[in-house]
Amino acid sequence: MNDASPDAPPTFEAQALAFGRDVYSGHGKIEILPKVGAETLADMAVAYTPGVGHVVRRLLAHPEELGQQTTKDNMVALVTDGTAVLGFGNVGPHAGMPVMEGKAVMFKALAGIDCMPLCLDVKSPEQFCDVVAALEPSFGGINMEDVAAPHCFRILRALDEILSIPVIHDDQYGTATVALGGLIKALELTGRKPGDVRVVVNGVGAAGSATIFMLQALGVGDIVAVDRNGILKAGDPLAHEHWREIAARSNRSRLTGGLADALKGADVFIGLSVGGIVDEEMIRSMAKDPIVFALANPEPEIAPDRARAAGAVIAASGRFDFPNHCNNVLAFPGLMRGALDTKAKSVSIGMCLAASRTLARLGGNDTEHILPSPLDPVTHASVAEAAAMAAVAEGLARVSVRPGDVRSHTLALTKLVAERQASLPRQT
Amino acid sequence: MNDASPDAPPTFEAQALAFGRDVYSGHGKIEILPKVGAETLADMAVAYTPGVGHVVRRLLAHPEELGQQTTKDNMVALVTDGTAVLGFGNVGPHAGMPVMEGKAVMFKALAGIDCMPLCLDVKSPEQFCDVVAALEPSFGGINMEDVAAPHCFRILRALDEILSIPVIHDDQYGTATVALGGLIKALELTGRKPGDVRVVVNGVGAAGSATIFMLQALGVGDIVAVDRNGILKAGDPLAHEHWREIAARSNRSRLTGGLADALKGADVFIGLSVGGIVDEEMIRSMAKDPIVFALANPEPEIAPDRARAAGAVIAASGRFDFPNHCNNVLAFPGLMRGALDTKAKSVSIGMCLAASRTLARLGGNDTEHILPSPLDPVTHASVAEAAAMAAVAEGLARVSVRPGDVRSHTLALTKLVAERQASLPRQT
Repeated sequence: MNDASPDAPPTFEAQALAFGRDVYSGHGKIEILPKVGAETLADMAVAYTPGVGHVVRRLLAHPEELGQQTTKDNMVALVTDGTAVLGFGNVGPHAGMPVMEGKAVMFKALAGIDCMPLCLDVKSPEQFCDVVAALEPSFGGINMEDVAAPHCFRILRALDEILSIPVIHDDQYGTATVALGGLIKALELTGRKPGDVRVVVNGVGAAGSATIFMLQALGVGDIVAVDRNGILKAGDPLAHEHWREIAARSNRSRLTGGLADALKGADVFIGLSVGGIVDEEMIRSMAKDPIVFALANPEPEIAPDRARAAGAVIAASGRFDFPNHCNNVLAFPGLMRGALDTKAKSVSIGMCLAASRTLARLGGNDTEHILPSPLDPVTHASVAEAAAMAAVAEGLARVSVRPGDVRSHTLALTKLVAERQASLPRQT
Repeated sequence: MNDASPDAPPTFEAQALAFGRDVYSGHGKIEILPKVGAETLADMAVAYTPGVGHVVRRLLAHPEELGQQTTKDNMVALVTDGTAVLGFGNVGPHAGMPVMEGKAVMFKALAGIDCMPLCLDVKSPEQFCDVVAALEPSFGGINMEDVAAPHCFRILRALDEILSIPVIHDDQYGTATVALGGLIKALELTGRKPGDVRVVVNGVGAAGSATIFMLQALGVGDIVAVDRNGILKAGDPLAHEHWREIAARSNRSRLTGGLADALKGADVFIGLSVGGIVDEEMIRSMAKDPIVFALANPEPEIAPDRARAAGAVIAASGRFDFPNHCNNVLAFPGLMRGALDTKAKSVSIGMCLAASRTLARLGGNDTEHILPSPLDPVTHASVAEAAAMAAVAEGLARVSVRPGDVRSHTLALTKLVAERQASLPRQT
């Protein structure tokens, strides 16, 4: 499997490949376990037949108790068609599976959410929506993942309309929520106000587009969107309505040219594009004390240390091995927890922005730790609480929660998961 | 929730309703847990990003390793549209959920299979098939459940053709496998051969039809099928091709009339219909030492004690509280385990019959214990082994297994599940 000598320590790649393969009960990273005993005939009689018959009868008389009698309200479908998997592009539904399983691990460990990876073999956005809509009875929420732009925009909008359960496209709003959290903190630390800065967003795919919408919601007036053809501006002959909308709503100074032109005098760079396309010269051309979010994965648009060396006062990336690690794992568990606990009709930009503000509040006060740790249960509980209270404030919540409820629920669930996981046979 | 005094012991109904509701981490009977640790940043890096990227890259180069790198090969979708739930009929996908969860508990506890309940909101057999086909990438097998006849016949046939993974409709072949297991044993105990007996099957829905096909495979030459309109015979103007086929292939004596007429002189009654439709008089009209399988749920066609009193030498039912409890839980875990472990293309009648013969072999040698216990792990391991070796013999297996492999694998898995479950917080 790799060419290293048998005595050499395993490479990270070898570890990653072994991680889900050689686990205690077969392959893969997750399992579906009973939460109830099934060791005696009496157990079987209640857990299966005839016990389940009583539950069916109860639900027929009281359909509103579905969430109390089944897993539905805590069960989320992780759906993908595998068209935009990490940096690999359209790998199809099969090769899309490992990301979904990794995500299911994170959702459960960090927010107590049961997640089922569903890699869909579908041929069109319409078919994607039809399949997901058919699955609604079993799920309390939907997390879309790794679906390519521009289809993902249409699918998210359609599902949000069709379904009565919350739908998140993590690559759009999960990523944008974390980027905005970092940005809010960075602006605070450098004494700037959203309304006073120019932000350049490079890449207008799923994450870039959502980031632009969230920047507008935050009150950033001067947003410049750049794609591989250069700066977007109103009236450009763009291929998709989604991008025409972004062009119409950004670039108030009607800048023209490419990324280098956009960056001249800009306060903030947010890259959600491809690795290595920003150089030191571009950073030096920015306004005083520039802020750089180089979030392309796995290789950032510019390595954070190079950005810092060229004058960036704060530099963040998607890399674990640099300070200011910006990963959507800071957002998606809590966002979904908040949506589930309030039975939110949708996950709004307002809920995401509330989560961003919470991440900024929890972040450190030095330029190398602007975001909190994903290992701290308080991070996800606080994000969940913020998203839930925003859902209540916006009238999206369908159950009432009091301040603190969602936070305590999240902490209680993650504690239970950790206890249950303590019995897990350890990997060698 | 019930009118009993608070001091009275909880009724079975109350227990059943509380069982899935008040469990340790919210509602419902199952949860999706990581099999890998996620407590450190290093864990996260392998379990999620960037670790999953290495797995995706590996799968792109070696798509045949999907089963080694993900849960697919041990993951089964429990699919229903809720059109034929227990004795309730068409309750829809939401009220169909409790049965699916109970089934997921049984599959995992008894055969180590991870099962995801998917209650589908679909409008036609075609849409049912389209949705399930789209889900194939994530699953190693499909278990259909509670889908009404005659749609279920068409759906099973279509899915079996479309999908490369095994599909079981438990209400057809799970139930039939157990009925045949009991029958094989009953014939042995009473010294009769399949070719010499007349078997009356009352009810030609999912379970009845499959039972008739299996009886033919067993070599029973004289099968009389009866539905609510009476005895089926070739040339009857029946509503569905499926039933015309059964009529054409049964009733060689061209009997006419109703159930009472069919039973006169018959050796075996297998009821898969509705409660209370057989009386003592009918039993007395059967051949000497009649065998009665009254499998309607929850009320049998005739209670086993009444059948015995009227002369039945062996009486079985679907009830836990009588001897000779015939429940499909004896078949479905092992059948699916055998199909998964051999990556069988289909689950054939031959595989089911091999499982039936195994159940008969494991059953007791007295007339009140003709079937083995579902609590004995050996039962399911033996069924799995039998189904697997039949899959190999019929050329349906896509991986080679040696005799004993599937049996040991099943026993090892259920042991691991039991160990993991030992840490489960106990219900009060």
